[in-house]
Amino acid sequence: MNSGFFGDTKPVKYEGPDSTNPLAYRFYNADEVVLGKRLEDHLRFAVAYWHSFVWPGGDPFGGQTFERPWFNETMEGAKLKADVAFEMFSILGAPYFCFHDADVRPEGDTLAESNKRLHEIADYFAGKMEKTGTKLLWGTANLFSNRRYMSGAATNPDPDVFAYAAATVKTCIDVTQKLKGENYVLWGGREGYETLLNTDMKRELDQMGRFLSLVVDYKHKIGFKGAILIEPKPQEPTKHQYDYDAATVYGFLKRFGLENEVKVNLEQGHAILAGHSFEHELATASALGIFGSIDMNRNDYQSGWDTDQFPNNVPEVALAYFEILKAGGFTSGGTNFDSKLRRQSLDPQDLLIAHIGGMDTCARGLKAAAKMIEDKVLTGFVDERYAGWSKPEAQQMLSGKLSLEDIANKVEGSGLQPQPRSGRQEYLENVVNRYV
Amino acid sequence: MNSGFFGDTKPVKYEGPDSTNPLAYRFYNADEVVLGKRLEDHLRFAVAYWHSFVWPGGDPFGGQTFERPWFNETMEGAKLKADVAFEMFSILGAPYFCFHDADVRPEGDTLAESNKRLHEIADYFAGKMEKTGTKLLWGTANLFSNRRYMSGAATNPDPDVFAYAAATVKTCIDVTQKLKGENYVLWGGREGYETLLNTDMKRELDQMGRFLSLVVDYKHKIGFKGAILIEPKPQEPTKHQYDYDAATVYGFLKRFGLENEVKVNLEQGHAILAGHSFEHELATASALGIFGSIDMNRNDYQSGWDTDQFPNNVPEVALAYFEILKAGGFTSGGTNFDSKLRRQSLDPQDLLIAHIGGMDTCARGLKAAAKMIEDKVLTGFVDERYAGWSKPEAQQMLSGKLSLEDIANKVEGSGLQPQPRSGRQEYLENVVNRYV
Amino acid sequence: MNSGFFGDTKPVKYEGPDSTNPLAYRFYNADEVVLGKRLEDHLRFAVAYWHSFVWPGGDPFGGQTFERPWFNETMEGAKLKADVAFEMFSILGAPYFCFHDADVRPEGDTLAESNKRLHEIADYFAGKMEKTGTKLLWGTANLFSNRRYMSGAATNPDPDVFAYAAATVKTCIDVTQKLKGENYVLWGGREGYETLLNTDMKRELDQMGRFLSLVVDYKHKIGFKGAILIEPKPQEPTKHQYDYDAATVYGFLKRFGLENEVKVNLEQGHAILAGHSFEHELATASALGIFGSIDMNRNDYQSGWDTDQFPNNVPEVALAYFEILKAGGFTSGGTNFDSKLRRQSLDPQDLLIAHIGGMDTCARGLKAAAKMIEDKVLTGFVDERYAGWSKPEAQQMLSGKLSLEDIANKVEGSGLQPQPRSGRQEYLENVVNRYV
Amino acid sequence: MNSGFFGDTKPVKYEGPDSTNPLAYRFYNADEVVLGKRLEDHLRFAVAYWHSFVWPGGDPFGGQTFERPWFNETMEGAKLKADVAFEMFSILGAPYFCFHDADVRPEGDTLAESNKRLHEIADYFAGKMEKTGTKLLWGTANLFSNRRYMSGAATNPDPDVFAYAAATVKTCIDVTQKLKGENYVLWGGREGYETLLNTDMKRELDQMGRFLSLVVDYKHKIGFKGAILIEPKPQEPTKHQYDYDAATVYGFLKRFGLENEVKVNLEQGHAILAGHSFEHELATASALGIFGSIDMNRNDYQSGWDTDQFPNNVPEVALAYFEILKAGGFTSGGTNFDSKLRRQSLDPQDLLIAHIGGMDTCARGLKAAAKMIEDKVLTGFVDERYAGWSKPEAQQMLSGKLSLEDIANKVEGSGLQPQPRSGRQEYLENVVNRYV
Repeated sequence: MNSGFFGDTKPVKYEGPDSTNPLAYRFYNADEVVLGKRLEDHLRFAVAYWHSFVWPGGDPFGGQTFERPWFNETMEGAKLKADVAFEMFSILGAPYFCFHDADVRPEGDTLAESNKRLHEIADYFAGKMEKTGTKLLWGTANLFSNRRYMSGAATNPDPDVFAYAAATVKTCIDVTQKLKGENYVLWGGREGYETLLNTDMKRELDQMGRFLSLVVDYKHKIGFKGAILIEPKPQEPTKHQYDYDAATVYGFLKRFGLENEVKVNLEQGHAILAGHSFEHELATASALGIFGSIDMNRNDYQSGWDTDQFPNNVPEVALAYFEILKAGGFTSGGTNFDSKLRRQSLDPQDLLIAHIGGMDTCARGLKAAAKMIEDKVLTGFVDERYAGWSKPEAQQMLSGKLSLEDIANKVEGSGLQPQPRSGRQEYLENVVNRYV
Repeated sequence: MNSGFFGDTKPVKYEGPDSTNPLAYRFYNADEVVLGKRLEDHLRFAVAYWHSFVWPGGDPFGGQTFERPWFNETMEGAKLKADVAFEMFSILGAPYFCFHDADVRPEGDTLAESNKRLHEIADYFAGKMEKTGTKLLWGTANLFSNRRYMSGAATNPDPDVFAYAAATVKTCIDVTQKLKGENYVLWGGREGYETLLNTDMKRELDQMGRFLSLVVDYKHKIGFKGAILIEPKPQEPTKHQYDYDAATVYGFLKRFGLENEVKVNLEQGHAILAGHSFEHELATASALGIFGSIDMNRNDYQSGWDTDQFPNNVPEVALAYFEILKAGGFTSGGTNFDSKLRRQSLDPQDLLIAHIGGMDTCARGLKAAAKMIEDKVLTGFVDERYAGWSKPEAQQMLSGKLSLEDIANKVEGSGLQPQPRSGRQEYLENVVNRYV
Repeated sequence: MNSGFFGDTKPVKYEGPDSTNPLAYRFYNADEVVLGKRLEDHLRFAVAYWHSFVWPGGDPFGGQTFERPWFNETMEGAKLKADVAFEMFSILGAPYFCFHDADVRPEGDTLAESNKRLHEIADYFAGKMEKTGTKLLWGTANLFSNRRYMSGAATNPDPDVFAYAAATVKTCIDVTQKLKGENYVLWGGREGYETLLNTDMKRELDQMGRFLSLVVDYKHKIGFKGAILIEPKPQEPTKHQYDYDAATVYGFLKRFGLENEVKVNLEQGHAILAGHSFEHELATASALGIFGSIDMNRNDYQSGWDTDQFPNNVPEVALAYFEILKAGGFTSGGTNFDSKLRRQSLDPQDLLIAHIGGMDTCARGLKAAAKMIEDKVLTGFVDERYAGWSKPEAQQMLSGKLSLEDIANKVEGSGLQPQPRSGRQEYLENVVNRYV
Repeated sequence: MNSGFFGDTKPVKYEGPDSTNPLAYRFYNADEVVLGKRLEDHLRFAVAYWHSFVWPGGDPFGGQTFERPWFNETMEGAKLKADVAFEMFSILGAPYFCFHDADVRPEGDTLAESNKRLHEIADYFAGKMEKTGTKLLWGTANLFSNRRYMSGAATNPDPDVFAYAAATVKTCIDVTQKLKGENYVLWGGREGYETLLNTDMKRELDQMGRFLSLVVDYKHKIGFKGAILIEPKPQEPTKHQYDYDAATVYGFLKRFGLENEVKVNLEQGHAILAGHSFEHELATASALGIFGSIDMNRNDYQSGWDTDQFPNNVPEVALAYFEILKAGGFTSGGTNFDSKLRRQSLDPQDLLIAHIGGMDTCARGLKAAAKMIEDKVLTGFVDERYAGWSKPEAQQMLSGKLSLEDIANKVEGSGLQPQPRSGRQEYLENVVNRYV
């Protein structure tokens, strides 16, 4: 039985680029084969529970704008919310979803009660997943909204909060495993500081390392097969978060010997906040061997905070998937995007349209990226640009066979004068524009 | 014999806080003992050759404004420049200086000739150092200005450039050692990219790792006792530099097993460009065990590029030295600052005044920081804030004695409800204001 | 009778710079005479109702952290809040306060009811003002929090919202007049857009001009003697607000012929968000003749959103008051600051300490600025720098007596070669550091 | 006779979207008619002399990378540069060009000599313009590169510099008129400040107003028919420029009564530096009636300085032309873009390719914008959104027939409760994606 929230909206179909139907896909044709794989299997779309079904439309200067029948702190509300969510997953034909514990169940008076409720909702989900075929891309714990976490979860000055957070994560991993989630994500929203004046950074980093080790150990203990993912973000809510960006997370993982156990879930908006392009973060994670999954929500370039808008700029999205495809594409990861509605977008249909627009932008971007890969228009250029490094003398330098002195002697002896060659950035940008 | 550039300016003296003499120190009293050490030995000031004696006053929209008698590409010019530089070091009473090869000698037609000139100038320096007592804080190679480096030095697609850069660094280390330099610095101005479209980041990072290893090996081979320092910067001149910030450099060092061999030289302005406060970079480097030295030049908060102004905000500088003192103070490192004049500051005296102002600001900041350390007004608060972690149960969690499951059982079993406590940021900020 | 919220805290006294009492002023000595005026009359401090008594400690990633007994939507709660607020005003010895309608009364079911409640609270205030001597610096209407304003108030596409906002402002002005408020402020939190795609900017600017004219006309009609103030802000909550900065507001006022009727209320944090320094905004408003009042709350330089922290950097605050004093000081305006606590600052005392710290920073800054004015150390330099313009030939150019051709003929005829002179920025910065 | 710089490159042809020829247009079909006008007449492309033929490839950390045979300070060099420039204009089929005096002639020892040289080159241009049919979109004076302008031109503390600048502009307008230029541009590169400490802003704004009035008077005197344009930019080279953005320029023009005499030349990159989108600046200028012309060069979103890259993001460019078409399209203005090459782009062909890519991006964007206009997909939505304002009661409010009190009475009397309606941003963004 239908909740009625979306009226009698039919499942969204692929109608091709010329369609003007706002409730149709113009590019996302799930079964279309690109580079030997179905689009659905490339993109692995997941719908996020939080912004779509939990966020009330508030901001720091104004309260709730959305009116949803499930906005109440009861288990009935939670189930109605689940009904609507799975209806939307089906309408969209999205293969995956993602959630935090706090998104799906009202908080209990004790952790035991909260956990019990989480399991109850998980069972409710299980039935719906069975029926609709929707799968869980990842689960996660909200360790940042409740006031107990105001000074951090793993990095809290109070070990009780560390313990509470650890216990919470344990249940969330259990539930993620129960629902056959393919990854488990950690976002350190409050793992950082408001001021260094009251903070012992070294101590907090050690706490955070221990916490992550506990999670990894537990994963192995229970045989959870999914990947553990850290989601970097430089700031907001805190003045400064510890998981600043992919390179910072890499150093953190190396420090605690976890670089083969944990990967990153990268978000476009977070990349921007950290002063990087999204492609940069993807290329970095790939170069360092820790690429896992993505949140494809973008930020507004003129706003200094996280806007979590759905992706709509095809050229940018194409470059992101180009990096992902070069990195071998997703394994356990996928494309989550928050599609946080603008707070003036009150209508249920706005929710559908935001997802359709975002999914179509991603599909169009991925197809363009795949074509660039096939045509080798960029990779060919790059290989040729570095071709000198495959010569034996160059390889000797790189492999460590020559010392600094050896190299210096050769250079001075030969009177070497390296000649610069054009980097041809403008040409390459024009080439990309042939595809997007 | 005096070059006459600064007229008959006498050495700058300490005259105390009430002095209105623009050519006197009001706070920098070299022999004053603070926390058991002379101020001079705490601060270890070094004057930078480049901005003070090489930069012509140009910017992207305008050319040279400064008229210096040594602005010509001859060895005579180079020696006149050295004369004036050492006169300034003496007038200021600065114990150290720093330089790039390109600052001090005209480029030759071949690397061999450039190196020969560098050695000639180094010998000229040696005489002056002997006479004036000025020491070398660090030497470095300019691997970014010449067009051969336009696509990087170690990370160049052309191995010939890598080789040329390696040979250049070899001589610069030799010269640094000859002059008893206490550190050797690498700033990767062009180690990064303008566009990912023509870049193989993984390959470039590997090149950079190899380059650094060559440098470290050579240091050990010749018995250079100084520290090798990397200077992080996020961007400018490139769109994106690889040595983005302290945390990124740490990950890079770990990747190549160099984290015990190399430290960071942190710059206030670079911290700002990377989205951090300077204190953050200092605290991070300290927590990760790679703190080395500082460039105390600040950026303008409203400008998105590197302005390299001398420090003038005492409260900010005090917080920086507070982190440095907490980290144990400088060992081989020191306080370099570029004091890049504003391009309208044409007069020789402006050069002196910029350094006096910067040094006085640092001295005032360090004294305030030292007093805060002595009074334990902040460290005491922090220790108390984390006191819960010294309890046995907390230590068990931290040491790995308890698993995630153990902790979860305890939390659910005890019905634990952590209670938030005020972080008291406002109080702590007021406390700092008692000292600055 | 005391509400007990602040325990038995005594009124905060001036104890001088050496005091370490966190509940004492070290610089704010209300009766101290500076430049011929009492400090209290210079600074005209006002405490803001909203952040101190209304904000629950939430942010976009977390909910309420503060627990205040008046957090409920009743008139009893509103009165308890008023009791505590006036207790705090008295403890602090702040001569003024400021409020929005929504801060002080629960919203009614109709505007008529809301207005009635506002008048009831205003009467309650009046009694307390009488008793404590606290005065009202300004009143204002909250036209941004309620969902009816989500698409703007004056600039809403729906004229009903314009009307509702107009009616609301009318009552707020009435109440401000009743309480002898010295100014009335308009902050256009939602007067802007989220996307140009759904926006007719020209139309919205015209609506905004009409709205402001209505307000000005009404002020004259009822004989309200206070100034009407616009508070510029570039963005947040909207992607882009129309009252971007002082210069934009000036153009807007000129367009509607209101430049002699309305002034600006400038905020340090808003200046930063708009890419300016606070001094810039103050100097601009002064040069354009529209300087009115200030909100002295600062932003964090590394955060891209409005943090509304109390001022704590004396050198920055001194430069701000230096501009204010050069502009002749406040007339009807004053120093409001939000002192939005960090959300971890849970304790009642944190509220007092934030205000004490901010007021002391302002007092110290103003005293430094006053001394710089007295000593003419900066103004003298500036006068001398432009001295050439007082010569008759220069005055002829400036007054329009010479045409472009006349000037060209003189320049070519005389072979004029202007000679640049040092701007001496470094010297001037050092001079400032003698005062702060 | 051909200079040989571009080898035997043939004029660039339109070959349609499927072409992979890097030296062909895929979208710019000059004679194609869109909205009743030829594409060439819509876009009015102008090639900029400076970045293409003058910039040596330097940046603050490195010197010249480009090697051009005309890089010397002789009149022969200047003529060779002109030969190559006009060859490029012809190869590209660009109808217009733009230049600064300093771009085209070597500076003389006196202004008289500089002016004489400028006239000589202008005559040389005239012959080439005649032959090739290339027209002048605008001329301008470089009042920022020479050290005499380091502290401003019109706003200099030294009236001699004001006079020198005035005399320079006089000749530049003369030359622009001689070459039938369709506009004259003023960019205030140094009209701003490095520090407020040495600046009298009010005085400088008055000087700037006088300067502009002189220019406008002279234009009328000599019967120059083109528009006078100001190019806003917030900063760089100065810390803060006075012509910050379109709204600031509007206020400045109103202050001096010049709002009907002067328009703005808007640049995408400058909009970004000022915290705006380019569409915002266009919509603002249009709403205020001062829209003139554009510089279509973009900035890098992750760099805090002006990169002046050619436009390459079609969705963004489409939204810009959408605003321009809504504003009625260009009259005397046109599409200039700097196409500043990346400094690694050494080859002559890079120069062509940058322009081809930029022009094609603009053509594609304009076609998409024109189609959106034709289909009324956005304008129709907007009209409907504001439809309530055409009702009589709404018009009464807007026209000033109702006072604040009247409106308040109606609202309270009727119990009006405005109901929010969805702003549908996501839908509109998807609609745009159907066109780009």
